Amino acid sequence: MPVDPNAPVRISAFNWVPPFARGQVRDLRVRWALEEAGIRYAVRKLDAKVERPSDYLAEQPFGQVPSYRDETITLFESGAIVIHIGEKSETLLPADPAGRARAIAWAFAALNSVEPPIMNLATIDFFRPDADWARESRPEVVALIGSRLDRLVDYLEDRDWLEGRFTAGDLLMTTVLRILDHTDLVAARPTLAAYKARGEARPAFGRALAAQLADFELSEAVAAA
Amino acid sequence: MPVDPNAPVRISAFNWVPPFARGQVRDLRVRWALEEAGIRYAVRKLDAKVERPSDYLAEQPFGQVPSYRDETITLFESGAIVIHIGEKSETLLPADPAGRARAIAWAFAALNSVEPPIMNLATIDFFRPDADWARESRPEVVALIGSRLDRLVDYLEDRDWLEGRFTAGDLLMTTVLRILDHTDLVAARPTLAAYKARGEARPAFGRALAAQLADFELSEAVAAA
Repeated sequence: MPVDPNAPVRISAFNWVPPFARGQVRDLRVRWALEEAGIRYAVRKLDAKVERPSDYLAEQPFGQVPSYRDETITLFESGAIVIHIGEKSETLLPADPAGRARAIAWAFAALNSVEPPIMNLATIDFFRPDADWARESRPEVVALIGSRLDRLVDYLEDRDWLEGRFTAGDLLMTTVLRILDHTDLVAARPTLAAYKARGEARPAFGRALAAQLADFELSEAVAAA
Repeated sequence: MPVDPNAPVRISAFNWVPPFARGQVRDLRVRWALEEAGIRYAVRKLDAKVERPSDYLAEQPFGQVPSYRDETITLFESGAIVIHIGEKSETLLPADPAGRARAIAWAFAALNSVEPPIMNLATIDFFRPDADWARESRPEVVALIGSRLDRLVDYLEDRDWLEGRFTAGDLLMTTVLRILDHTDLVAARPTLAAYKARGEARPAFGRALAAQLADFELSEAVAAA
């Protein structure tokens, strides 16, 4: 599903980010969901290095990426956007109410129970590696992440996906685990590494990742020209 | 809506927590949503000081509080449970799809954009106040919280509620802001303090808070007897 400047769905993304953030910016989650649902989308590109334009704060109150709009709504928060896209595609959200609610439970688990300590580690490792407090607190942060990942391993057992079939919960959990790619925390847990690899092997993920990276490469080519 | 041991809806909660955590444990969010929806509920009480029973991990993979079950489903994650209860009550989730999606966006904003730095501050202030790393990193944590709260103030302007009427998003945001009650970060922002007070003034919130605190008081009375 190529990016289409004339599509009625439009997301936001950054036009350039440093190498460590490529493949990590949260518009990847929304691109992936749109690819799973077979929905074309346009991209509003923002400059990460300057203050957000005020009209952008009207669509994303915290100034973060991504935002989303379609014919009927303007939305923000990658979790909420993925759920909204899921309403249009059973690939992401089962039609039965119980299956749907379980997928949403995993979406919140990914973003409220698993991601926060992982983002603390990313802050330490990418933004404040030389701070004394970062060096001193890192072992505690790693221990908390490890305990959350261990519970996830226990839960997964021999499941391919969190609820037996791929859902929006797996999409979000996979992107959260990817934030740990600079560590061995996932690789050291084969069940979890295999689970993450299954998500990344989906063709829709591959197309979404390629589209995000292509935007960054375009910016570099323009800057170099 | 009194707690009813025979209700088909059952949540989990702790039987006792230290004073600083009273009125903060996340079952409060679910109790509040059930009160708004007019749904009776039973409570499975867990001992916070011992390892979770294995049958509890089957219903809450991370061992956290609360879990939820009704006639059709077992759920976890306070955000997902509140949304699920919202499917049964327009007080929490508007019936129109766009209003519903916006409420869900605020639910994710509360739990993924606002709560994580606030929980980092709670960890510092309540669990690790004497750690060198905690003292050194606290100003950065406070600054990040402040910037998120300032954006929320800008967004609220003269709105009573995030989307013009009370939704599940306000319920979750109010409980997240309450985690800062030991600081002046909300009080220093009158728009936000008034917004939080509006949430806490709802009769359903009052009943939910009283029910959580009553359980803790019961445990203390039993222990003292």
